[in-house]
Amino acid sequence: MNPALGWGTTTFLLLLAAVVCHGHVERQEQWEEVPQLGESRFGSLWPLPQNVVISPVAFMLRSSSFQIVHSAESSAGPGCSILQSAFRRYFEYMFGYTKNQGGNTKKGQDSEVTELQVWITSADSECDAYPSVTSDESYELTVDQPTAVLKAAKVWGALRGLETFSQLVYEDQYGAKKINKTDVQDFPRFAHRGLLLDSSRHFLPVKVILANLEAMAMNKYNVFHWHIVDDNSFPYESTVFPDLSRKGAYHPYTHIYTPTDVKMVIEFARMRGIRVISEFDTPGHTQSWGKGQMDLLTSCYSGENPTGSFGPVNPILNSTYDFMAKFFKEVSLVFPDTYIHLGGDEVDFTCWKSNPDIQAFMQEHGFDKDFKKLESYYIQKLLDIVGSTKKGYMIWQEVFDNGVKLKPDTIIHVWKGNEEQYSKELAAVTAAGFHALLSSPWYLNRISYGQDWTVAYKADPHDFNGTDAQKKLVIGGEACLWGEYVDATNLTPRLWPRASAVAERLWSNQNVTDVGDAYNRLTQHRCRMVARGIPAEPLFVGYCDQEYKGL
Amino acid sequence: MNPALGWGTTTFLLLLAAVVCHGHVERQEQWEEVPQLGESRFGSLWPLPQNVVISPVAFMLRSSSFQIVHSAESSAGPGCSILQSAFRRYFEYMFGYTKNQGGNTKKGQDSEVTELQVWITSADSECDAYPSVTSDESYELTVDQPTAVLKAAKVWGALRGLETFSQLVYEDQYGAKKINKTDVQDFPRFAHRGLLLDSSRHFLPVKVILANLEAMAMNKYNVFHWHIVDDNSFPYESTVFPDLSRKGAYHPYTHIYTPTDVKMVIEFARMRGIRVISEFDTPGHTQSWGKGQMDLLTSCYSGENPTGSFGPVNPILNSTYDFMAKFFKEVSLVFPDTYIHLGGDEVDFTCWKSNPDIQAFMQEHGFDKDFKKLESYYIQKLLDIVGSTKKGYMIWQEVFDNGVKLKPDTIIHVWKGNEEQYSKELAAVTAAGFHALLSSPWYLNRISYGQDWTVAYKADPHDFNGTDAQKKLVIGGEACLWGEYVDATNLTPRLWPRASAVAERLWSNQNVTDVGDAYNRLTQHRCRMVARGIPAEPLFVGYCDQEYKGL
Repeated sequence: MNPALGWGTTTFLLLLAAVVCHGHVERQEQWEEVPQLGESRFGSLWPLPQNVVISPVAFMLRSSSFQIVHSAESSAGPGCSILQSAFRRYFEYMFGYTKNQGGNTKKGQDSEVTELQVWITSADSECDAYPSVTSDESYELTVDQPTAVLKAAKVWGALRGLETFSQLVYEDQYGAKKINKTDVQDFPRFAHRGLLLDSSRHFLPVKVILANLEAMAMNKYNVFHWHIVDDNSFPYESTVFPDLSRKGAYHPYTHIYTPTDVKMVIEFARMRGIRVISEFDTPGHTQSWGKGQMDLLTSCYSGENPTGSFGPVNPILNSTYDFMAKFFKEVSLVFPDTYIHLGGDEVDFTCWKSNPDIQAFMQEHGFDKDFKKLESYYIQKLLDIVGSTKKGYMIWQEVFDNGVKLKPDTIIHVWKGNEEQYSKELAAVTAAGFHALLSSPWYLNRISYGQDWTVAYKADPHDFNGTDAQKKLVIGGEACLWGEYVDATNLTPRLWPRASAVAERLWSNQNVTDVGDAYNRLTQHRCRMVARGIPAEPLFVGYCDQEYKGL
Repeated sequence: MNPALGWGTTTFLLLLAAVVCHGHVERQEQWEEVPQLGESRFGSLWPLPQNVVISPVAFMLRSSSFQIVHSAESSAGPGCSILQSAFRRYFEYMFGYTKNQGGNTKKGQDSEVTELQVWITSADSECDAYPSVTSDESYELTVDQPTAVLKAAKVWGALRGLETFSQLVYEDQYGAKKINKTDVQDFPRFAHRGLLLDSSRHFLPVKVILANLEAMAMNKYNVFHWHIVDDNSFPYESTVFPDLSRKGAYHPYTHIYTPTDVKMVIEFARMRGIRVISEFDTPGHTQSWGKGQMDLLTSCYSGENPTGSFGPVNPILNSTYDFMAKFFKEVSLVFPDTYIHLGGDEVDFTCWKSNPDIQAFMQEHGFDKDFKKLESYYIQKLLDIVGSTKKGYMIWQEVFDNGVKLKPDTIIHVWKGNEEQYSKELAAVTAAGFHALLSSPWYLNRISYGQDWTVAYKADPHDFNGTDAQKKLVIGGEACLWGEYVDATNLTPRLWPRASAVAERLWSNQNVTDVGDAYNRLTQHRCRMVARGIPAEPLFVGYCDQEYKGL
């Protein structure tokens, strides 16, 4: 069944036409197979639930009589703000803000769903908690008349189930809202389904971040990896070291994230079951840190004279570690997530090599000329500092590659190389007993002409040689949108629905790999995102009933 | 001098940092030379005027005392709505909508420009006319205190000069508006500087078209090539054949351009000195036409039986030409421009070949098996029909390549091939004495990672072997944004500032080829577009003082 039959059919015919007469696309040589639009038996569901049975029996839904309520048995009630605001949000998604369909006829007549009961089954609903890597996101949804029931152990599963319920609602040919009798048992394949945004290379207004958190929830993402600072700018306003943003941001007032902004982002994300993991990458990628913190970075030398430019964090000064201890103490309090991403990638040794004090220190410590040892020395001390805040840490793969001693629960973030290379890395990381997170195939900042979402869709974090135990150590993946070429003007359409492809790979069953079926569902899912106010770009020729209203 | 010194300097340093520590850009192999941001001696001017001398002497500009007025000698006055609305538009661009700087101190004090006098020197200002390919867009601008003077023969030059004046205004470190003593003599290198948008593969809301006309004016474009219908949908609402959009549009009410919409687009464009050239492409690319017009398209056959699908326009029926005569009569009245684009590209002969009536017709007319002759037969008759409406026509290069007899003033639109191929085509077209228009290197729908604007910037319509007389037959070029992958969600940032690169190539002197200087100016020009409400995407790492306020 297809919730938007008229739409699908029309576009299907037109697409055929487009394929016959190829309209100035002669030179689309890289354009491989373009799936042809048709109907999926799973309608517009995205990402596809683990188990779903949709019956042909359809029920009515009316905004005037339909309500989402806490079930009597639920451990959560009206005091649970996560659910309360989710009820309102999804009601609006389903019925719009102003529509009121039909008169207030009597409830419970045949073939009408009048109620969605949300039933949190565990004694602790986790209503006031933050989501974590061990959060239970599973749920069961039974759509029947007059009552649909959404059962979940915790609020996190209820959030995912509400999204699924809203995706099952469609309009018939008269514009009436309908939902089919349906059974869903669902849970995520991977616990960590993340999206990285980079607010350093370009500043991203809070509005843009919030809109993308909304879109993430629509795609069942559960981690916002906030690459908040980098070489280019330091927009994070630290209360302990306010000079970092005052001197290191693009602008000290208009291009920073105040403590209130950060809190708002974290709470907005929590309400959607999304963790916020901040990344403060050191010792490289820190040019902007040096502006507001004297002597933090290494002075580069030309022969015996400082050049006036600076390299990575200076690893030989006690003051560096004093600073890091204070700074990460603050960060560990500001960001409630139990993990911090510490970066550790792409350390350029040129400046360290040039500095006579560092040369002497290397000598002293018997590092010889091996600057990887100096890097490891720094990282080791940093990990001890952050470990003392009781946080777990994530690091880019170089830290593992360079043999730094790591706590067993460390998450190694694999980002380098082609398929062969990242598969080997996943095998190596998990063979060493560490948790792995994959990003290599999902650098969505890299764009190309045509339907490149299919490339992201086909990658799988379990495509490597390893035991079942090794596979279990892969906790998921992250789509990355590095910021060189994106800001508020183009970020959202460039990201969506391309990031939706990664979302399905990380949520749905491993055997969900039919690109044609995915195309049919994703085409409708992207129109739904557009209708909800997210400027998700088109996959191919066609239209949405409700086109984007902005620019 | 650089109107935004603080901006340029800060970003310059940060960019250097980015180059040293390359932040997850390891795999940007196609990324060739990235120019480093600095200051251009031409500030933020884009496209660069033909002659400009900017003195270091700076004058104040205050919104409370500054005004744009008709000079006493001007042939245009307050009755000229093109200028009146341009005065208001540019005042707002320069001073914003609400700012009122400083008290209302006495006028004419030293070092202040209090007036821009706009002086139309020709007896006929062309205030109420439509722009055309022969419109005079030249102007002279003298910025001095207390009065700046903008002289132009016609309103079209005045519009270009107002844009230039507004680009000379900058903020000093205290936020005060300033402009330097400056002399400009300017005119376009090419008369036809067009942008093609495709409203068939995706429907483009009028709002999106108007925003892009605004952006075009900021870049001194003067032709909007409206590829309004194609295989996929027929959004043009015809008064004579209303079924065309009623049955051929994606939706008969929400996805069409009414006669009022079309008028609004044309008038909005006229006010900015932009021609609107409509394209109704036949005989191929017409699948959507067939839905609302019986027997217009060729029935395709499998053996002796019609397959139920349709091919190009049926060229053997008198009814076809009756239809075309009536349809193009309407089009010629709706679109005031003296040119119509008739398409003629990519005709697929498969369906014609399959049709027994067409086979018989070919026999009868002695065309043997040469379907190019049949295509020419159709096009010839169409050109005669359109010629009788007194319009000139533009056609895609295939029509020329296939040897159709053309009127001497026909414009051949070159769109195929790589540099070697399109250079040859330009040489052939102009050697045959026809006017040529280049688009091959400017298919901006084709995207790639990194700064691909530089590729568009380096192409030149005169880079072919030919005499001076041949070069003069090249009337310009058009950037094309075909619609397979763009709609309201992503069109504007994908187009700008990439289309700005083409705009400078077509306006500025042939010797303006310094990519580094262009990068410095274009970076500021794109921030200016953002400040004016156009979501033009970033060229590279950095920021704008005023970031985009939308999504």
